[in-house]
Amino acid sequence: MYRPEIKIVDCTIRDGGLMNDHRFEKPVVKAVFGALAEAGVDYVELGYKCDKKQYPAKDFGVWKFCDEADLRDVAHECDTKVSVMADVGRVDYDDFLPAKDSIVTLYRVATYAKEIDKAIHLGNHLKGLGYEVAVNIMAVSHVLEPDLDEALAQLAQTNFEFIYLVDSFGYLYCEQIQYLADKYISALPGKTIGIHCHNNQQLGFANTIEAIIRGINMLDSSIYGMGRAAGNCNTELLLGFLKNPKYDIRPVLDVIEAHFVELHKKLKWGYEIPYMIVGNLNKHPRSAMAMVKDGSTQSFREYFDKLVHEDEV
Amino acid sequence: MYRPEIKIVDCTIRDGGLMNDHRFEKPVVKAVFGALAEAGVDYVELGYKCDKKQYPAKDFGVWKFCDEADLRDVAHECDTKVSVMADVGRVDYDDFLPAKDSIVTLYRVATYAKEIDKAIHLGNHLKGLGYEVAVNIMAVSHVLEPDLDEALAQLAQTNFEFIYLVDSFGYLYCEQIQYLADKYISALPGKTIGIHCHNNQQLGFANTIEAIIRGINMLDSSIYGMGRAAGNCNTELLLGFLKNPKYDIRPVLDVIEAHFVELHKKLKWGYEIPYMIVGNLNKHPRSAMAMVKDGSTQSFREYFDKLVHEDEV
Repeated sequence: MYRPEIKIVDCTIRDGGLMNDHRFEKPVVKAVFGALAEAGVDYVELGYKCDKKQYPAKDFGVWKFCDEADLRDVAHECDTKVSVMADVGRVDYDDFLPAKDSIVTLYRVATYAKEIDKAIHLGNHLKGLGYEVAVNIMAVSHVLEPDLDEALAQLAQTNFEFIYLVDSFGYLYCEQIQYLADKYISALPGKTIGIHCHNNQQLGFANTIEAIIRGINMLDSSIYGMGRAAGNCNTELLLGFLKNPKYDIRPVLDVIEAHFVELHKKLKWGYEIPYMIVGNLNKHPRSAMAMVKDGSTQSFREYFDKLVHEDEV
Repeated sequence: MYRPEIKIVDCTIRDGGLMNDHRFEKPVVKAVFGALAEAGVDYVELGYKCDKKQYPAKDFGVWKFCDEADLRDVAHECDTKVSVMADVGRVDYDDFLPAKDSIVTLYRVATYAKEIDKAIHLGNHLKGLGYEVAVNIMAVSHVLEPDLDEALAQLAQTNFEFIYLVDSFGYLYCEQIQYLADKYISALPGKTIGIHCHNNQQLGFANTIEAIIRGINMLDSSIYGMGRAAGNCNTELLLGFLKNPKYDIRPVLDVIEAHFVELHKKLKWGYEIPYMIVGNLNKHPRSAMAMVKDGSTQSFREYFDKLVHEDEV
């Protein structure tokens, strides 16, 4: 699939940071940025911009805060742009530099549909500082249709460049991706639509392809699939699929070999039965992550049955 | 997706046997058959019917030969039927009992398109003995279109029940599955079409869903994805997707917990970069399996470059 409008946002360090409290060593992050730049990836997301008054700096790695100096230690000015995520309600507006003084090009505002007004407020602040802005409506598989329609209608009135379809729970099948992709595209004329998939049911890459086919042009992925719990659409799979000559899979193969095969053994993201269960049942992965990390006296069947019945009234 | 015509063929023991020379212990195979029967799975494929004159029995587990007594040690008569695979050129016609004396219901003839005449000859022999017969045309991503069309035209003239679309190299994307599914269905009126996917690019489950949407009704899968190299479409994912009330995912969760989590640590099927590379490049997984099993002095990049260029003339 060669469509020049397509752009990749690699979010290995940002989403992967949820597996290690954002404690990546700087040489690793520098190697990741360098490999992705060499591979022709369009944006690299290096972490969150969290408020240190809410999250003590000593409890996390630096990629939870993305101070300008830390970003400049690992990234350099080039065609590959730096992205940072800002969670609604977890930021201090005073922490954002004017864009002209920052290596960051894109801020992605992560929000739930119910907090869309706050997300737009934050997005407007970031636009005012000169950044590109994306709004990522998380957990779309838990949003009622009229609420989603209203959020999209509000976003259509903004000057934000990018709006994301986010399958936080790895629940959606291809037909639902098609339906939602069509909805986002028709509700948001003139904007670029993005897709962010989780891999609970091994559909992260496949659903990203479906989104491309429907006309979505901004594609999230992560190296070796690294991300929370089951992880994301794999950057190397996406690079292998896309035919744009600017992309080169080989630097990503190098950095996988140098760092991610070992990281994976240690941090164990990816397909596991508890993640499959929460994906299949459209649930938050919190309890599944605890089960995978700490083990459990519950059997898979007991866990499945508990989740199946927990919403019964 | 609830369509009563849909049937699942679990091929864990057959395809998984390629990872351990068919050396599954009988209690494990019995547990697998029992779990799949309880789960409502329609067919369970327990191995190959290989000719012991070509393959010395001492070099393999019993599931390479599927002697009647071994099958009866692990399977019982019930709604879940026993399937066995017969490779063209690797069988002795005299090894097959009449169907009335066997617990086997279905023989699946595995063939390459170029050997379709031999496959039809073997299929006719098995039909004559009273079995259900499938023909699986392997490695379809290496077959020239006119040769495939001719093979399908010949199969249309047979009385075999099932014809399979087989993505042996895990190369196909959803659009190619759609194209081939439409071709098989229109070329083979009155027959049930099957799909067998490999998971090199994490598309095994997704492509099986695409096939269902296009009207394919016979679905191969394996428990925890166990199969050669990157493995297959996961039975538990498929059971979670299908809405037919006869299916129950929970016995499969039990058997994964009891056996397959450990087996996976030992035999290591599933997503690996060398398997991704051969899938992406439409190559046989042989060299990738050697690389994963034995390690290699080649880097991922060197391996990729070698395969990219090896067909250059």
